[in-house]
Amino acid sequence: MIDLVLVGIGTGNPEHLTLQAIREINAADLILIPRKGPGKTDLADLRQAICAHVLTNPDTRIAEFDMPRRNADDPDYLKGVDQWHEAVAGAWNATIHENLPQGGTVALLVWGDPALYDSTLRIAARLSPSPRVRSIPGIMSLNMLAAAHTIALNDIGAPFLVTTGRQLRDHGWPQGVDTLVVMLDGECSFQHLSPDDVTIYWGAYVGMAEQILLSGPLTRMAPQIIDARDVARARHGWIMDIYLLRRTRKPRTM
Amino acid sequence: MIDLVLVGIGTGNPEHLTLQAIREINAADLILIPRKGPGKTDLADLRQAICAHVLTNPDTRIAEFDMPRRNADDPDYLKGVDQWHEAVAGAWNATIHENLPQGGTVALLVWGDPALYDSTLRIAARLSPSPRVRSIPGIMSLNMLAAAHTIALNDIGAPFLVTTGRQLRDHGWPQGVDTLVVMLDGECSFQHLSPDDVTIYWGAYVGMAEQILLSGPLTRMAPQIIDARDVARARHGWIMDIYLLRRTRKPRTM
Ligand SMILES: C[S@@+](CC[C@H](N)C(=O)[O-])C[C@H]1O[C@@H](n2cnc3c(N)ncnc32)[C@H](O)[C@@H]1O
Ligand SMILES: C[S@@+](CC[C@H](N)C(=O)[O-])C[C@H]1O[C@@H](n2cnc3c(N)ncnc32)[C@H](O)[C@@H]1O
Repeated sequence: MIDLVLVGIGTGNPEHLTLQAIREINAADLILIPRKGPGKTDLADLRQAICAHVLTNPDTRIAEFDMPRRNADDPDYLKGVDQWHEAVAGAWNATIHENLPQGGTVALLVWGDPALYDSTLRIAARLSPSPRVRSIPGIMSLNMLAAAHTIALNDIGAPFLVTTGRQLRDHGWPQGVDTLVVMLDGECSFQHLSPDDVTIYWGAYVGMAEQILLSGPLTRMAPQIIDARDVARARHGWIMDIYLLRRTRKPRTM
Repeated sequence: MIDLVLVGIGTGNPEHLTLQAIREINAADLILIPRKGPGKTDLADLRQAICAHVLTNPDTRIAEFDMPRRNADDPDYLKGVDQWHEAVAGAWNATIHENLPQGGTVALLVWGDPALYDSTLRIAARLSPSPRVRSIPGIMSLNMLAAAHTIALNDIGAPFLVTTGRQLRDHGWPQGVDTLVVMLDGECSFQHLSPDDVTIYWGAYVGMAEQILLSGPLTRMAPQIIDARDVARARHGWIMDIYLLRRTRKPRTM
């Protein structure tokens, strides 16, 4: 029998580990770390550094496995994702059974929180025989973004939408909500919005040593952010960014 | 000069403290803990317990202050909130200056994350002279809800809306989004929705010893949750609950 524990580790600051995450990491028989191959941002080194930092149990083993690649060329997006999940589940299975033939507890260190735009829970559901799965919450990139800018996610009593760059490009600003948190946006999709009365709070590598923050009226900030993003990506070879957009409400008429 | 640090402490499980939160608590000269008076859920005891658990710096002092009450009878909601924020800022100021006449670092332990439906950041902005304010992210109730149910917040590539019970009652299911996370709902507002094809994941006291979880089709679960909520509230004298609603997508036609 396998116990699979998905441990949220925050988004790059090892100090964002919770006491629970540290306990779970030390309670595992095996920690699985994905490697995506040279030149890819697999953050495997950061996961190794986190383990080096908090792992005190000498019996816990660490195993790296080669992360299958997703075929981004498949025109059917959901089918491509489906096949990739299947391949990852296969890689986990092989690594787990090689290292824990008698069963035991396996921890996977998940970026941010396993509940947010992450496939680990869905991949875990494909394993057979089914492991017992538990999820340990972690600080998410949107918490980090808000904390770094010292802002609230919501206006008083108001909703906010968490969405992706693709959704924003395809559907524009959604109805009935004045605050958007946009993730998974490789294309600065904010530039396609009508920028009036919108403030942007942007962050790249939030919580990490490389952190960059920019904020202000979207009209003025859009070109600056596009530039800063290009420069940072060229310099580091990779980038992760996130932003919050807030539309100023028109004054109430009654 | 005052440094004010708003420290997210998670939503009731002391193990959800991050290493950063613990470091900040121990770096403070003064920790402010609100008391709401007998019979109120001020969770002051839980904050004291957290301090007892992680505070190792003998020089850090803890000061309780009486939390002003909000006048919930004021028909002008935003004005009522405004006056209450002003009163809380006054209470902080008095307690800080009494305990730290020469200035120093003050920590406030904030439930969950200071960025989510919390007034601490807005109250801090009213202090004069202005302190330097920093925000330390914490595990939020919605992370706890998702982790407890072992579910993701989002469908693959899809957005989700974080909103309040009042918004749901006043505006119904918002357009263009199939997942809602509902907070601050004293009235089980899900009962006013048309429940077909909606799954609810509900949790009360998530992350705490009292935790209750219920999930399933909204049609079937709505009455059960209303009952369970009444029983739990009567038993404990207070309740905090949160839920995620997910509408099953119609199969794509192309
Ligand atoms: C696949 S999702 C994973 C999200 C993660 N589970 C979380 O809780 O934040 C990756 C996206 O998260 C955001 N992200 C993650 N870490 C980030 C960081 N350190 N700085 C900025 N954005 C980050 C970016 O929008 C990125 O495209
Ligand atoms: C004023 S808001 C504060 C939210 C907090 N800052 C956070 O990050 O979760 C209070 C609302 O949060 C939710 N909440 C907070 N703690 C909770 C818990 N332990 N269990 C269930 N819901 C909780 C409830 O919806 C409650 O009405």
